[in-house]
Amino acid sequence: MDSIRVALVGLGPIGIEVGKALRSRGVTFLGAADPAPEKAGRDLGDLLGGEKMNVLVCSSAGDLYSPTATERLGGDIAVICTGSRMPAVAPQIEQAIRAGLHVVSTCEELSDPKLRHADVARRLDAAAREHKVGILGTGVNPGLVMDRLALAIAGACVRVDRVFVKRVVDAAKRRGPLRAKVGAGLTREEFEAGVAAGKLSHVGLPESAALLAEGLGWPANDIRDTIEPVVARVETEGIARGRVLGLHQTARVHVGDRVPVELDLTMAVGVPDPGDRIVVEGDPPLDAFFTNGFHGDRATVGCVVNALPFVAAGPPGLQTVVSLPLFGLAPVRSV
Amino acid sequence: MDSIRVALVGLGPIGIEVGKALRSRGVTFLGAADPAPEKAGRDLGDLLGGEKMNVLVCSSAGDLYSPTATERLGGDIAVICTGSRMPAVAPQIEQAIRAGLHVVSTCEELSDPKLRHADVARRLDAAAREHKVGILGTGVNPGLVMDRLALAIAGACVRVDRVFVKRVVDAAKRRGPLRAKVGAGLTREEFEAGVAAGKLSHVGLPESAALLAEGLGWPANDIRDTIEPVVARVETEGIARGRVLGLHQTARVHVGDRVPVELDLTMAVGVPDPGDRIVVEGDPPLDAFFTNGFHGDRATVGCVVNALPFVAAGPPGLQTVVSLPLFGLAPVRSV
Repeated sequence: MDSIRVALVGLGPIGIEVGKALRSRGVTFLGAADPAPEKAGRDLGDLLGGEKMNVLVCSSAGDLYSPTATERLGGDIAVICTGSRMPAVAPQIEQAIRAGLHVVSTCEELSDPKLRHADVARRLDAAAREHKVGILGTGVNPGLVMDRLALAIAGACVRVDRVFVKRVVDAAKRRGPLRAKVGAGLTREEFEAGVAAGKLSHVGLPESAALLAEGLGWPANDIRDTIEPVVARVETEGIARGRVLGLHQTARVHVGDRVPVELDLTMAVGVPDPGDRIVVEGDPPLDAFFTNGFHGDRATVGCVVNALPFVAAGPPGLQTVVSLPLFGLAPVRSV
Repeated sequence: MDSIRVALVGLGPIGIEVGKALRSRGVTFLGAADPAPEKAGRDLGDLLGGEKMNVLVCSSAGDLYSPTATERLGGDIAVICTGSRMPAVAPQIEQAIRAGLHVVSTCEELSDPKLRHADVARRLDAAAREHKVGILGTGVNPGLVMDRLALAIAGACVRVDRVFVKRVVDAAKRRGPLRAKVGAGLTREEFEAGVAAGKLSHVGLPESAALLAEGLGWPANDIRDTIEPVVARVETEGIARGRVLGLHQTARVHVGDRVPVELDLTMAVGVPDPGDRIVVEGDPPLDAFFTNGFHGDRATVGCVVNALPFVAAGPPGLQTVVSLPLFGLAPVRSV
């Protein structure tokens, strides 16, 4: 971790927490960037809370990269926490690559960009190889619990027939943006309109399904996903009966006439028995339950920070959490 | 997996099952070896059950290696399933290395041989590097559930304070040798004598603890392990009251005045609530329970077979399940 220097791009809730985690591990900051007027121009320490860090927050990532481009080191990484969708984030990734930095991003679609943005994925891969840097999209979901970890557990099997992962997240226990993202409090009609506009949904479920299938050696010929509202049958945590508590999404991988990978995600206010379940049908059968599940925000920060040394040491090009070894000796994990 | 050829050494219960799993995946056999008079000289297919394979079981591994030494390929691996202790297995490993084969073995002490056999570990590492082959000791425990998988789960954490893994295995549901290994049916005195003679115990618990601590970046200054009998309070599965049902072992890693890694293993006949629990105290906290646990024999076979392509593609020298990436894209896992 000593050789890693981070340019932190995007200082929303996740970016701020990633910044705090990196600071607590003594990582060097190349700088930080966020266009918001209440952030740009300030010292990063003010935004993270705590002492001054003598790291100026730039209004654009371009300003951040340019001064050091001539003295780029192999452990320089842009950590981009700006959005979930490739069209918005891809130019930011490309800018960082061309400045000679590896990229680790929480962009959910970047977890397996070839699924929906094959052309962009090819272009980023080529640019990353040209500049000898790696790119990785990760977080806890996509990035760990529904793909990489399920694959790790299946690694104990002589034979795998089917993998089923079910996450139940109580949105009442999470921050405001998550409640908004899952549509808590909306009418059914508002929920449907939000889904149609691409504003409501957990991004990355089909990407996790594709990664898991790929890791299991099952080339998916079709991935089908669904999304529907979870509606309050009684008033729940201040949300009236008949209003939306959250969402229920699924992604199923079809291989021939089989559906060997199925992911099931409920994120809703007041949902009972929150937790993450990973079931591997095969020889031997395996059935894991994580009580209360992986905390989305905290585990995403952990996955991002822990990935950095592996990306810095890994091969160039566009990587995924199943193409790049991410579990192993990494002093970064220690306290 | 197409490029892998296996020399299977040791045709006890685990070796036979590894052989079946490899055959079902279409792996090429260089041959097999076992000195037992009822095995040597027969066709491997007769021992695995099923059709003839035209693979003669040699009485010694030396016979097995010599004919092909001149045409060694990079994917040639000796899978050695002969014993739990390094003094017995190390010469077999060395013989395979010198014949130019990678080695994957279920030898429990090989999972982290530097812990108890530092000189032998150094010698094997040097020999493996010289011959450009890798060595790995693995199985499910040591090899996955109490070390590698706990580390994989902790990879979601911003901060790890302590890891606790507890396995409870109902020996009544497992094969005879396991019942014998845990002392089921013995008197307390016979149990104590068996422990003193090194005949009773699950080998590899301190090795798992050391691997996990190493992966977490906590150099252990002391690992302390305990072993005690589980005694029947009432007649259980045909074992009289007062007799031994099995064993309870622990391994604790001490770092300064802290004990940040604790492993707890019970293997006994009729023990309630069998399963594997992995608890990570930290940020975020994580608590996983595998109902019924990882089946020791089946998951060991799975871990061994799934490791082969990673060892063949990995760096030379003595590896461990936390130094070598073992989770990722491996078509070997598919059906």
